Amino acid sequence: MNISRTSFPRVVIIGGGFSGIALAKKLSKQEVQVVLLDKNNYHNFQPLLYQVSTGGLEPDSIAYPIRKILKDFPNFSFRLAEVNEIDSVNNLVKTDIGELKFDYLVVASGSKTNYFGNSEIEKYSMAMKTIPQSLNLRSLILENFEEALLTSDLNERNALMNFVIVGGGPTGVELAGALAEIKKGILPKDYPDLDTRLAQIHIIQSSDCILKGMSDKASAKAEDFLEKLGVNIWKNVRVTNYDGKTVTTNTDLTFETATLVWAAGVKGATIKGLEAEELITRGNRLLVNEFNQVKGYNHIFAIGDIASMITDEFPNGFPMMAQPAIQQGSQLGDNILKLIEQKPMVPFVYKDKGVMATIGRNKAVVDLPKFKFQGVFAWYVWMFVHLFFLIGFRNRMVVFINWVYNYVRFDREARLIIRPFKKKLNTK
Amino acid sequence: MNISRTSFPRVVIIGGGFSGIALAKKLSKQEVQVVLLDKNNYHNFQPLLYQVSTGGLEPDSIAYPIRKILKDFPNFSFRLAEVNEIDSVNNLVKTDIGELKFDYLVVASGSKTNYFGNSEIEKYSMAMKTIPQSLNLRSLILENFEEALLTSDLNERNALMNFVIVGGGPTGVELAGALAEIKKGILPKDYPDLDTRLAQIHIIQSSDCILKGMSDKASAKAEDFLEKLGVNIWKNVRVTNYDGKTVTTNTDLTFETATLVWAAGVKGATIKGLEAEELITRGNRLLVNEFNQVKGYNHIFAIGDIASMITDEFPNGFPMMAQPAIQQGSQLGDNILKLIEQKPMVPFVYKDKGVMATIGRNKAVVDLPKFKFQGVFAWYVWMFVHLFFLIGFRNRMVVFINWVYNYVRFDREARLIIRPFKKKLNTK
Repeated sequence: MNISRTSFPRVVIIGGGFSGIALAKKLSKQEVQVVLLDKNNYHNFQPLLYQVSTGGLEPDSIAYPIRKILKDFPNFSFRLAEVNEIDSVNNLVKTDIGELKFDYLVVASGSKTNYFGNSEIEKYSMAMKTIPQSLNLRSLILENFEEALLTSDLNERNALMNFVIVGGGPTGVELAGALAEIKKGILPKDYPDLDTRLAQIHIIQSSDCILKGMSDKASAKAEDFLEKLGVNIWKNVRVTNYDGKTVTTNTDLTFETATLVWAAGVKGATIKGLEAEELITRGNRLLVNEFNQVKGYNHIFAIGDIASMITDEFPNGFPMMAQPAIQQGSQLGDNILKLIEQKPMVPFVYKDKGVMATIGRNKAVVDLPKFKFQGVFAWYVWMFVHLFFLIGFRNRMVVFINWVYNYVRFDREARLIIRPFKKKLNTK
Repeated sequence: MNISRTSFPRVVIIGGGFSGIALAKKLSKQEVQVVLLDKNNYHNFQPLLYQVSTGGLEPDSIAYPIRKILKDFPNFSFRLAEVNEIDSVNNLVKTDIGELKFDYLVVASGSKTNYFGNSEIEKYSMAMKTIPQSLNLRSLILENFEEALLTSDLNERNALMNFVIVGGGPTGVELAGALAEIKKGILPKDYPDLDTRLAQIHIIQSSDCILKGMSDKASAKAEDFLEKLGVNIWKNVRVTNYDGKTVTTNTDLTFETATLVWAAGVKGATIKGLEAEELITRGNRLLVNEFNQVKGYNHIFAIGDIASMITDEFPNGFPMMAQPAIQQGSQLGDNILKLIEQKPMVPFVYKDKGVMATIGRNKAVVDLPKFKFQGVFAWYVWMFVHLFFLIGFRNRMVVFINWVYNYVRFDREARLIIRPFKKKLNTK
């Protein structure tokens, strides 16, 4: 990769997610040369992907060009590249566009969907971790309803209208809530020829409550909200397989559906070269010390979802969410500068700012460290916080307008099949 | 196709473009059963596709769900279907989802890119007639700039940064203007490592002026605007081939470019079954009489781009633009009802409401029937008219905000490679 060396030490950051961008901001205009690598030319705001899937937002509104973030950082280079391997002996990153030397390396490669080894589920289910995946899900949902019109077989028609969401975390809960609102407000008008009341939305949760990382109150209230919206919640049920038609579970329960959304788990997106057994911990994450140094290395760091920093309070590492990622990225920026100046680094301390999830119109649950609340006010807080954390004034404005419009009109206008998903499958 | 008959005569409309939708509105709540077929579930606003390609607008903002347009029309059905053939003997439309009987058929299938039989150009060039095509062009432009960073071969790098647009009609002119603004305002900031001044934008026009359908004044002024923006205009030059690298012409001129946009012509998107020689006229359009009846048929009509109604003023049919399409669709609605009631139909008379094109910031040309003007005021008129004709309050709001933002900030934030185009090609 033809990036000329400057006189400053070179920091290579793999990944422009929450943690990578927070780190980048800290290193801007400092005496380091920074190269940021990402396989996309945009940063995307994962917490709102489910709204892209359900036609509430346009994909471009929750993404932001990485080059635009970096444009005022004279010491930065960005390259659109996929990292294949890390050579920690020669301090080299090997990518699809060539090799790159580093003095300091920060792995911020995030996480990917965890299918727990089930290749059939991986093949037939839909994930919602990236913008293209979210658009595929949007297309599939709409294509299934169009197809439901064409069949006179009642079982097949119902299967096309049913949704099974595996995993009752924030992603599953928020998606289920949005689908329930679509079922109520949009489908009857869009598909007058279908009896859309028959469309069923199921959440399957392997443990005994949804929103496991939140308070009991939040979990119970979310369940209550979802049930009022007509969502079926199946607790203590584990999905064992899905063949594209039937979902089987570890109980007698089976579900017929053309749409299985797999939101049951994520795992660290590790990179070849840093995969030694002693480095990898639960959830396929890289073991780091309190300075986010990967175990055994002085100059290689990991932050965000990929990093597992084990503390008394979090024996499995911090939750794979935006907050720990942002905080780690930000602090590592200071620590790298300290390390270069040979000053002592400051150990990372996680400040829990709370967790929240929205279920739908006027319905959200918020757990702040000292204050937990649910309902309309929580919903406003959820919206405010999400708008605040979106990057870019234009994105905030456009998302805000969409939300106001959708709220006032009980609508979601981006129900467009721009890239057919199913058709593509069929012609393969 | 399982659509039950009602007691009313059935009108089948092929295509949900400007003409099909204008017709649909006229037939709503009338004593006819209407089935609208389209291969997309959305209506798209073609005049703004170039802004999607250049990152100024999001694709969802210029598209609108067809089902939402029809939701208040109780006598309508929509089916997502591609029409393969028309059986005019048995009054059948054959589609990828089955056959459908009609009493009246309206072909509103629009137009597609005309490569004039050159398969190499068809293979290697980019078109901009649909939303996916426009997104592909957006991705390609951005991918080419990313790739330009990777090569040290100056010729290759320049080819990656050059744009050749074939055709100086509104599409070519508007795209060239937008690219020139990106070159000036965005590329130097996004790609500080590239000498983006070397990026060249060419328009190749086979005749002796651009914007041929407009007044001499408009054409001259547009040329002047483009030249001030640094666009090279080559008149009286015809492109003979493009092999993915080099553009050859009927003169000594050749151009090295990785991006050739073919905006040199469109032709009617005819459908099998209505392709008899005597039906097809210049531009591959269906010959229709003054009631938009396809030659030789009483109950089969064509409207919009696909229809060629020959008049003294327009011996080759009306221009393939939104206005004639909307007016024909609207009038045909009345005429079909008259035909059913066995009343005399009213011949179509085209009301020329004018033509306009924008070149960039504060620069547009407008030809109204009685008043021609160029510059800042024309630009405001252009924006107002385009916002007015967009369907949907949300789309208007979002487009308006994007425009204000882009104007104030000299920016286009949707420069996102959401679906890589080049990568897809390479892995094929």
